[in-house]
Parts: sequence; C-alpha cells; structure tokens
Amino acid sequence: MTPQFAVVGKSTPKRDGVEKVTGRTRYLHDLALPRMAHGRILRARFPHARIVSIDATRARALPGVLVVLTGEDVEQHPFGFAKDQLALKRGKTCCIRDEVAAVAAETPEIAEAALALIDVEYTELPAVFDPRAALAPGAPLVHEHLSGNLTHLRYQFTHGDVDGACAGAAATVDGEYRLNFVSTACLGTMVAVADWNLDDRLTMHSTTQVPFLYQRDLAQALGIGGERVRVLQPPVGGNFGRGLDLYPIDVIAALLSRAVRRPVKIEFDRMEEFMAAPGREPCVIRLRTAASADGRLLARDAHVVIDNGAYVSWGSTTPHVMLSTVAGLYRCPNVRFDTTIAYTNNPYSGSMRGYGNLESTFAVESQMDDLADRLGLDRLEFRRRNATKPGDANPQGFAITSCALGECLDTVGEDAGRDVPAPRPGWKRGVGYAGMFHVAGGARIYRSDGCGAIVKLDDFGAVSLITGASEIGQGSETVLAMIVAEALGVPLERVAVVNSDTAVKPWDVGAHASRTTFIAGNAARLAAEDLRRRLLAMAAAFFEEPAERLEIREGWVFVRDEPQRREPYDRIVRAGHYRDGGRALVAEAFYDPPSTMLDKDLHGNVSAAYGFAAQAAVVDVDPETGAVEVRRIVSAHDVGRALNPAAAEGQIHGGIHMGLGYALAEKLVVEEGHVLSATFMDYALLRAADMPALAVRLIESVDAEGPFGAKGLGESGVIPVSAAVANAIHDAIGVRFTELPITPARVRAALARR
Amino acid sequence: MTPQFAVVGKSTPKRDGVEKVTGRTRYLHDLALPRMAHGRILRARFPHARIVSIDATRARALPGVLVVLTGEDVEQHPFGFAKDQLALKRGKTCCIRDEVAAVAAETPEIAEAALALIDVEYTELPAVFDPRAALAPGAPLVHEHLSGNLTHLRYQFTHGDVDGACAGAAATVDGEYRLNFVSTACLGTMVAVADWNLDDRLTMHSTTQVPFLYQRDLAQALGIGGERVRVLQPPVGGNFGRGLDLYPIDVIAALLSRAVRRPVKIEFDRMEEFMAAPGREPCVIRLRTAASADGRLLARDAHVVIDNGAYVSWGSTTPHVMLSTVAGLYRCPNVRFDTTIAYTNNPYSGSMRGYGNLESTFAVESQMDDLADRLGLDRLEFRRRNATKPGDANPQGFAITSCALGECLDTVGEDAGRDVPAPRPGWKRGVGYAGMFHVAGGARIYRSDGCGAIVKLDDFGAVSLITGASEIGQGSETVLAMIVAEALGVPLERVAVVNSDTAVKPWDVGAHASRTTFIAGNAARLAAEDLRRRLLAMAAAFFEEPAERLEIREGWVFVRDEPQRREPYDRIVRAGHYRDGGRALVAEAFYDPPSTMLDKDLHGNVSAAYGFAAQAAVVDVDPETGAVEVRRIVSAHDVGRALNPAAAEGQIHGGIHMGLGYALAEKLVVEEGHVLSATFMDYALLRAADMPALAVRLIESVDAEGPFGAKGLGESGVIPVSAAVANAIHDAIGVRFTELPITPARVRAALARR
Repeated sequence: MTPQFAVVGKSTPKRDGVEKVTGRTRYLHDLALPRMAHGRILRARFPHARIVSIDATRARALPGVLVVLTGEDVEQHPFGFAKDQLALKRGKTCCIRDEVAAVAAETPEIAEAALALIDVEYTELPAVFDPRAALAPGAPLVHEHLSGNLTHLRYQFTHGDVDGACAGAAATVDGEYRLNFVSTACLGTMVAVADWNLDDRLTMHSTTQVPFLYQRDLAQALGIGGERVRVLQPPVGGNFGRGLDLYPIDVIAALLSRAVRRPVKIEFDRMEEFMAAPGREPCVIRLRTAASADGRLLARDAHVVIDNGAYVSWGSTTPHVMLSTVAGLYRCPNVRFDTTIAYTNNPYSGSMRGYGNLESTFAVESQMDDLADRLGLDRLEFRRRNATKPGDANPQGFAITSCALGECLDTVGEDAGRDVPAPRPGWKRGVGYAGMFHVAGGARIYRSDGCGAIVKLDDFGAVSLITGASEIGQGSETVLAMIVAEALGVPLERVAVVNSDTAVKPWDVGAHASRTTFIAGNAARLAAEDLRRRLLAMAAAFFEEPAERLEIREGWVFVRDEPQRREPYDRIVRAGHYRDGGRALVAEAFYDPPSTMLDKDLHGNVSAAYGFAAQAAVVDVDPETGAVEVRRIVSAHDVGRALNPAAAEGQIHGGIHMGLGYALAEKLVVEEGHVLSATFMDYALLRAADMPALAVRLIESVDAEGPFGAKGLGESGVIPVSAAVANAIHDAIGVRFTELPITPARVRAALARR
Repeated sequence: MTPQFAVVGKSTPKRDGVEKVTGRTRYLHDLALPRMAHGRILRARFPHARIVSIDATRARALPGVLVVLTGEDVEQHPFGFAKDQLALKRGKTCCIRDEVAAVAAETPEIAEAALALIDVEYTELPAVFDPRAALAPGAPLVHEHLSGNLTHLRYQFTHGDVDGACAGAAATVDGEYRLNFVSTACLGTMVAVADWNLDDRLTMHSTTQVPFLYQRDLAQALGIGGERVRVLQPPVGGNFGRGLDLYPIDVIAALLSRAVRRPVKIEFDRMEEFMAAPGREPCVIRLRTAASADGRLLARDAHVVIDNGAYVSWGSTTPHVMLSTVAGLYRCPNVRFDTTIAYTNNPYSGSMRGYGNLESTFAVESQMDDLADRLGLDRLEFRRRNATKPGDANPQGFAITSCALGECLDTVGEDAGRDVPAPRPGWKRGVGYAGMFHVAGGARIYRSDGCGAIVKLDDFGAVSLITGASEIGQGSETVLAMIVAEALGVPLERVAVVNSDTAVKPWDVGAHASRTTFIAGNAARLAAEDLRRRLLAMAAAFFEEPAERLEIREGWVFVRDEPQRREPYDRIVRAGHYRDGGRALVAEAFYDPPSTMLDKDLHGNVSAAYGFAAQAAVVDVDPETGAVEVRRIVSAHDVGRALNPAAAEGQIHGGIHMGLGYALAEKLVVEEGHVLSATFMDYALLRAADMPALAVRLIESVDAEGPFGAKGLGESGVIPVSAAVANAIHDAIGVRFTELPITPARVRAALARR
C-alpha cells in the first residue's frame, strides 16, 4: 500500500539548522554594508523628567561623528499602537527607555563615546509606576495632554448571566493573579540597518516579524509613502513576538541614514536589549469561577489590570487573547470580562509568544484545580467533564471544528507519572495539570489575515516557493517546503524557500498567532496545486493521455494505471518548455482563512481553527530550601496533523523551556521605573541542564481547513506550563501561588508562613 | 486630447544611473562575504606545451594558503560550446590562457604569492597561430585526440544560383576582409564568487548575462544537478557579450569553494582581463558581390575563416549572424556562404556585442560602395534601390514585418552633411554610408527564446516586476519598469524591478541578441495586463460598475464616461485586499516569440522582428600623418518604437563608441599566442574627447509584435560604424581598407604606397 504522504508527516531537520550550528548563518548582526555608519541612542536619565536643554556641541565636535539628532532636529510623526510616541522624544521623558538623542558615527565606539558628550539638562518629575496608583486622583500624568492615565484600550465582554450563575453555584473560587515583566531574552539582540538612498527610498534590514505592517508603520512614522520602504529580513537570533511592533530603533536608524545618506546600523548590546526591547507585560488578573455540584463550569468573571508603561504597544492588546481563554478554555456558559489598562512611567511591553494566554491560563487553570478540590472532584476528571468538543460554539462565537482536548487530557493523565524516578528523601512530589486553548488557524486581527505564495519550477526541477511568510527560527521554511513538495509530488530537497524581501514576496500579515503553517501553508499548497495542474497538462501532452489519468509522486510523472510509463518530472518540465508555445512554470495563490473579526462586543470567529493542548507537570519541592525541581513535563497537543513531527516537538520543547522560566525563574527586575536586570547573570534564563524530561504527544485531529489537516502550534507549548507547574506545586505542598515566578525564596517564605 | 502613452516614449534616466555616478553601486567587485577566501589562477607559460609535472609543495606550505588545486586533484567535466576543455588543464596547455593550477588563500596577496611558488615543468611543443596554417598537413595538433585542427563547426548555405548570377552580372567586386582580436574592455573585470554550502548547494555570484544557461553549464562542468546551483547577478561594470559563456574562472571558483567550504572570490586584474576574458574573434571574410547594370544586387558569395583559438566558444558561432547579413542586408536573390573554423594555439574569443555582424557588415558595405562606384551609381541611391521592405522574405526565410530601412537611408542622406565645420587645411573630407540588418525580436538559438515575468502590486501601490531578464548596464530595468507602468496605468516611480537571482526570477535565455526589451518587455507587458484585469475587477466591485466601463491611467482608476468618479489605484488595491474574500495581487506571464529555429540548411525565421539602421560617417583625413578624425556620425535606427528615447540614444552612442574603436584604434595584440596588450596604455580605447559629434535619429515603424511597437536595438549602433568609416575614408582619399583598425600608420603607409 502506498503511504498517504511522501513528505508530510516525516520528521525533517530544519533547513537553517546546519548553518546555525556550524556558525555559518549570517545574522543581521553580521551585516556590514559599504560605507555603513554606526548609530547609538542616548536614553533618559530619569523615568519622568522635563528635558530642559540638550547641548550636543561637544558630541558633534568629536572626530568621526557624522550627525547628532534630537527630537527637535527632525520631522517626526507619532507611531505605535496608539500613535502616542515619537522616536526621538520631545520636551520630556516618560520612561527610562526614552530616546533623547541619537548619534551616527564612523564606528560604534565613536558613536558610544559621543553619547557621553551630549549634555542633557533635566528637571525630574514625580512619577508613577503602578497602574492602579496611576488612576488615583492627583497621580502624575504620563502624557500631559491627556486628561488622565487611563489608555483608550478597554476590552469588555459579557455573555449570559454571570451573577445569576454564581449565585446558584455549588462552589465559586476567587483569586488575584499577579504576573511580572519578563524578557524575550533573544540571543540575537535587536538590530536595525537603514539605507536611505539618493532616490529617497529606504531599505531596512530589520528583526521585524511582520514586514508588511512594519513597512506601513515605518513609512507613516517617517512621513513617506509605504511604497518607498523595502524591508529585508536576514536571519534573526530569536524573536518570540519582539518583532511585532515598530520601535524607536527602527525609526532612528532611518532618520540617521536620511541625515547622513549612508547606511546606518544600530545594534543593541545586552544591557540595552533588557532595557529597550519589549517583553511580556505585567498584569493583575482578578478571576472568579463558579461550578455546579456535578462539576460543570457555570461562570467566569475576570478583570485584568495591565501596566501599560509609557506608550501603548501591541502588548496592551493581549486581553483579546486573555478573554478567549476565560471564555473558551473549557465550556463555560456565562462569562464577564473587563480591563483597566493604564499608563505608567515604566517601560512598555510587547506582544510576546503566547500573547496574554500564559497569564490568563495561569489564572483559569489555577482555579480549575481549586474548584475541583472544592467540589471534591478529581482534578483531571473535572477538566474532562468541561472539555470543549468539536461542533461547539463558545461564548464569543468561536466555531470549534477539529478539537481533541479530551484526548489531550486523557493522554497526559495516562502519561504523567511514567518514568519519573522517586523524589529525593524529604522532597514532596506533586502532579499538576493544565489545558490550553489558542488560535490555530490564523487570528483575524486585521481585515486581512491572508498570505500570498508564488511557486516557480525550473528546467532542473528546482522549485522556488516565494512566500509572504517570515522565518524567525520557528521552522517555517522547512514546513512550507514540505507542503510544496507534498502538493507537487516532488522530492523535498528540490524545494527552496524565498521569504525575506518585501519587494519580492507577496503580502502576509507576519509571523504571529501561530499562524504560519496554517495560513502560509495553505497559500503554498494552493499555489503548488495550481502548478501541479499545469505540470499535469504538460505531461498530458507528453504522454498523450488525459491529465486525469496521470499522477505525480516522488518526482515521477506516470500513467496511473500503467506506472511503468513514467518520466522524471523535470524531463516533463523541459519538454513543456522547449517546444512551440512552450513555457516555464509559475503559479501563485493567496489564502485568507474563513474567519471573522471580533465585533465591538468581542463576538466573532477570529480563527479558522483552534488548537488545544494539555500538560502535566511532575515536580518535586524541597520544603527545607523551597527549591522546586520539575522532573517531567508531558505535553499533549492537538496539532491537526504533525507535518514535521520533529519541528513540532521542537517548538513545544522551546515553549516548555520558556514556560518553565516564566513559572520558576525569569523576572525582569524593574524598580521605580529603572530596569535592573542587565546581564544573563541577573536574568535567570533556564539552561539545558535545568530542563526536566519532556514527553510530547502529538494528537492528530486532522483539521478540515488546515494544510493536509495541520493546525498552528507555535505558541501552544509555552501557554499552560506555569499553570501546570503551579498546580503541581500546590499538589506537592498545598500552597497556592498566585504570582510568578515561584522562586525558592517565595516557596520557603510561604511554607514558613503556614 | 490625451496622449497615447503616459510613460512610454518619454526619455527617462536609467535607474542605476545615480548610484553609479555617485560611486554607490555595489559591484560584484565590492562583494565581501563572511569567511570569504580569495582565489588566483596560475596560467600557462607557453601557448602549447606538455605539462611534465606540477609541484605545489612550496605553495601549500605558505601560511594563509588554504588549498592548491591542479587538474589532477579534482573531478572535472568538460565544458564549453564543444565540451572541449576542462577548467584546470590536464597533460598540456593549448593556449597562453590555460589554467594550470589554482590557489585559495586568506588574502588575494597570499594567493598571488602562492602562484609563484607552484613549480611547473613544461616541455614546449610546436604551435600554430593561424587557422589556415593549422589546416596544412603536418600542422601541430591543438587537440591530439582529434584527427586535425578543423572544428566541427561549419555554416554552409546556398540559395539560388550564385555562379549563374555572377556570370550574368554587369559588375562584380571581390575582396578579402581581415578582422582582428579586440577586447570588450569592460571597466569591471570578470569576477566569480562561489559559495558551496554544507548542503552541497552552490551559490554563484557572477558576471554572467545568461544566468539560467550558466546554471546549467556550471552544474554540468561540476557534475552536479542544475537544481543545486543558484546564480546571483550583482551589478557589473560592462559585459557586451562577455557573460555569454561559462569560463574556467567560474568552475575554478566553485572547485576551490567546494574544497575549502568557504566562499571563494576570484577577481581578474586588468592584465588578466586582457588575456583571459573573451573578446571578438579574428576572422577573414572572402566576399564577392554581383549587381546588374540597373543597380540591383544579384548575388553574394562569402567564405569566412575563423581563428577559433584553443577551445570552441560561442564566439565561433558568429557565422550564424554573418550569414544573416550576407543574405539579408539589402535584397539579394542568390547567396552562397561557407566557413572554415579551425583550432589554433591562440586564446579563444567570445560572443561580443554585434556577434559577427560588425565583421560581415564591414565586408558587405565596403562592397556596396565599390559596386556603386563600378556601376557609376550614387552610393546611397544604390542602397535605396536594394533596400529591404516590409513583407519581404529573405533567402534564409526570415519574414520581414516592420521595416524602415529606406527611411533610415533617406534620413542619414539628408542629415550627413549638416553642422560639420569645414576640414582643416590640407585634410581631405569623405562621407561614408552603411546600412544594418539585425535580429530585433529575439533570436531563436535555443528551442525556447522565452522569458517569464511576475508582477506584484502591494497595499501602497508599489509594483514589483520579477523578470527573468538580466540588467548588464543596458537599461533593461528602466525600460521594463516603463512597460509595466504603461501597461498597468500607474506612475513609473512605483515600479521596482527584481532581476538578479535565479531562485527568484522566472526563466529567461539571457541578455543577448538585443532581445531584452522585446522578449522580456512582452513578458512584463503580458503579466502587467493580467494584473490590470484583476485590478479592474476589484475596481468594478468598488465602483459597482462593469470593468469595461473603467479605466486606469496615471495612478487613477476612474469611470471612463464619468471621470470625476475616480480613486487612487492603491486605494482600490486596499479595498480589494481588506474585505471578505480579498486578496493581494500577483500575476505572471511567459512570452516566447513567434519565431522558428534555423534548420540544418540555415533556413528559418530566427526572430519575431528585425531591426534596420543606416549610418553616415563624416571623416577628415590628414594625408601627411595618416590621422583620421571622425567629425560626425549620423545614425538612423528603425527601433519600432522608442520606449525610452534617451536610453535608446545612449545605447547607440555607446555602440558608436565601440564601433569607432573597432574601426580606428582598438586591437588586442596577440603575437605567437601571447597577449601583449596589458593595460589601457597599450589598448587604445577611445576616450570622451576622441568622440565626434553624434546625431541619432529614431525612426518608429511600430512593430506589431513588439511591446508597444518596440524592437531591439542593443547592438545596432555598433554594427555599421566600421563600414561607414572605412567608406568615408575611401571617399576622402580613395584608399579601400580591408583590415581593421585603420590606424594612422596604415593610412600613411597606404598613401605612400600609392
């Protein structure tokens, strides 16, 4: 029997892997353009201060300095999600990250030296660092032209009768969950290389992961048409959502390049990366969950307070996703959700992997355990009883099609305890569970959630896929090549992927919301299928058979019923090319998923498919020291179909690593508006030796809309980890932690308090 | 009245102009890749010698040397037009250019030093440097495995009864015309940068102008599949046909890179460029032309002897084009043509701009004057009387569609004498004419003469044309952008051209035979027209009008009969993208012209259109010194339609410059197989101050097949110059020169002889 797929479903090494592990990858950091100058940014001395004067005389006089720019020197346009900042600040600083001046010089060292020669006089202003305090009467105003510190963002949702349901519930639990700043901690820091040419066109080499939105936003910030901006995306050393917004680094690099008419590179060092690159937003989630005596969820009521920092970024739109979890992780008939998002003088965050879902899953899944305990139900059984099922429509109107949450829960339940050696003497063992619900078929944040693809087949059988998608290390090149190879019926190694130049590639929203395999994959599949049709038409002429009788598989074109009549596909291509009326083969497609945007009441169907997962964490806790050792994570994921199982597992492994850091170790220390974490000595990223045993179970629900049945899974590994770990710790020592990270000091203090 | 065209027909600066004149263009010479090593080639010490031994011990021991390769060290496959050479020679050297060994080292200086440390022992062999002598019995054999020095190339053609026609002619003229080696003298020398990665894929950064043929040929030479070779084409400093063959530099760079697994760059210095880059082949044309008393051409009989040099290149296929001129420049009912192409121990040539047509036009047009004189007819009138006309089919079967040769002759006749100051006292003035016939709608040398194009339109109205075409300084980017802008109805500055990566661009034969505007232009036009249809469909939904009622012009989409109902086209694009079922716009096309290959008897219709031109040269000759001063060239060209008149004039200016050098000054001195021209002090390239007044007249015959009526003209400026100048000199002093260049020494000697 012929297997169903020739390429898809086989674990395949990532295409960028060899070059990366051998140190050959040319990252944006390695880019050196002829005549390139080097830029550096002078940042605020105080989180909130009036800029009285800036005197750059001494800096400008330094040999090798090409230009010094301040906010007063250049035309600028506000940018950011709320258009509330300028790249080079004017008048005052609102957070410690604020860009006060920028230098371009012949070398990075000269640029750095010049920063120290810029004399800025400040008058410090009273500042506010807590979002609730920011809303108190008389609080310092972060933006003085606004009447208060409340941002315009508010996410309000109601479905059913929450109060009535709670009143009639057998049990309710209530809690407040506090999440802190963390950093994406990308090994490759942020870089922007701007090259403003004599035609007044700007080429940006950027770490962005949304090149077409970046093109638009950067052009607006510079006051030029988007058609004048070309974005190139060299390999990046991590991104994890860091590349979703436009940042001052990008605008400033462009302004410096425009000023000096040379390419200008700005590259963050690690300290600057901690301070100025966006991370995960701090928030406080107040959540109440109610259930019936037979263990049915009745209601959830949530209020999220977000520390917006000084400027609104995409990071403050995470309640979109928090709501999805509150309303959609397990069946819950009555839901209320509201937010308070306030400006403070803290640094602002970005939209980091998981995008609000880690935070809300931590709250929701903590309460699932607490409710089960209250009701005297098995914690896993309580979840199973409320599990979402195919055909559900959730309170927001999300249409659940493929769904294997139940199987995921069963799997981790069966698998959690396996192969874990006994705890050391005196240590307490606990097992915790958490489920996950996330978009997995795009996320219609914009009116278009689409992606374009062009497929070209040359005389040698080489296939180029020109995709709108962005490779940011997640393995999209590999899986898209696999999809094309499968759809065309050619060997995988013949397929190359072109994906790093907005002048070349067709439009795409960008790499976010775990959408690339699903959306760009479908676009690639459609284009490849069209090319396959054209190739079969050529083959029909060659074999003098109707195309319907022909098949392409593993690089051979053959007559289905007479498989001995076959030719290598590249021979058919050449025969179709080198004849009268011949042609070389190119096909294209655009795929926009069948989803609908949320309306003003946050109803809609934001994704064409949804992903589900469940995790079990086995942890040992040392009551003496408070040390928590995670022994095993079992992570079961409804992935639709695992197109590249090794890559899927790798994504989940990486997610678990990030989730464990969030749960137990990572905290970007921000005090009084100052970022105190400065190096990886301060910022406790987990190392390989810190990782537990991982078991990933890929469950294939075969989504009807996904490419070959696949759904997105880029974020699903990270989302439930902190909840599962907190539940396991609770299981082990009976302490419910509602703030992350759960450090040994906190565990010890909590045990001491008890 | 609305003009017919918004973009086409307006003189438009070349897109690469500003960057080039400001020194910002990043040529292949400027390319530096991380970890790049530098290669150098050791060449033969004798034109013909046995290689007794090669000892690279000392070279390999030099610090910084990474590898030394000889022909014995690596697997190689024969390449070249006749597959008669290896990149690194084995056993013996057949010309002074022969590559005996190659080095890769950390720096170019170390590589150069290493060459001197390679000890090669030779036994010199008797050599032959003249193609007739090479065919004499007992001549040294260039390739010992062959039975003689005659190549397999022979171009034999007969049409009508030449002998009968000559016998009955009122006049016949007979002559032998001798053409010498010249160099393309590109300001940018040849460079190859090879990057063989760990996946066993090769990326070549090359000066090629036929990237897809190069991909195929290089892969064959290396014994790998073409799908493993990607070709990138950074800007080049001239090419003029130099980039039509694969050369040892390319193969050697790849072999070195494979050996050291690092990028390797080989860059010719000027001396190496003169010696090892291909130029125009030396030949001797024996021609007889017969005419009737009333001035009708009756017959031509030609025999061409070509010095093939040591290996067969495309340069030895130039008789293809020589025949076209003998059979097709003016109406000539009886034609005979034959060739003798023999190996010698000279360097081999390439296929330089004009490709045999300069040589044959020099012979044909010299005899047109001589015949007119013999018949007592006005020289121009004689040409007019025999001018090709639309609807003609010539002896080879070429179908002449658009043709304005008569107008070209009239124009130069009227214009020749204008604005030329009187000659200095004692100097003799002459006026000479020459016509020109050349392919102008592609040249079907391969089974496909096609080109692909992809057009993409983004949210900002930015258009990217991804074309198979190669920009080699001829202005193709500019004219292709104009064609797309015109076909789409959008401003020119919105159109970008992508054309330098075989992984991205669709197939194309390459830049040769003046085909790019016609072939790539038609492909671009077809793709743009398809995109326009899609855009009009979007506009139909927007305006709620049938697409037939809508028009796009200068960036506005409007209702044809209600032009006040209009929107910027990019707004329509966004409206069509950001809606349910929306999409971003991409379209593609492939154009292969309606032409037919020549059959074995050299009958066919090789081009979809033919170009015609006439030139008049006004020269003053100083009988005292033999100095020739060209005072004015009038060049009238049937270009179909001048899409970019300034660029068309520029092409013709450049061609005249090259033609004048060929006529009067340039000669690559090759003696006993050694290339003696080593610098621009030796090689008399004309400088700006040497140039006469030029008057270009563009005559628009509006070709039915060409894009907006255009025909190719890349080569037409250079072709007739030497004939017109020789005729003018004859007119001035009565001396018929049959060998180029016509240097002052030769003029003086000829006058002295008389």
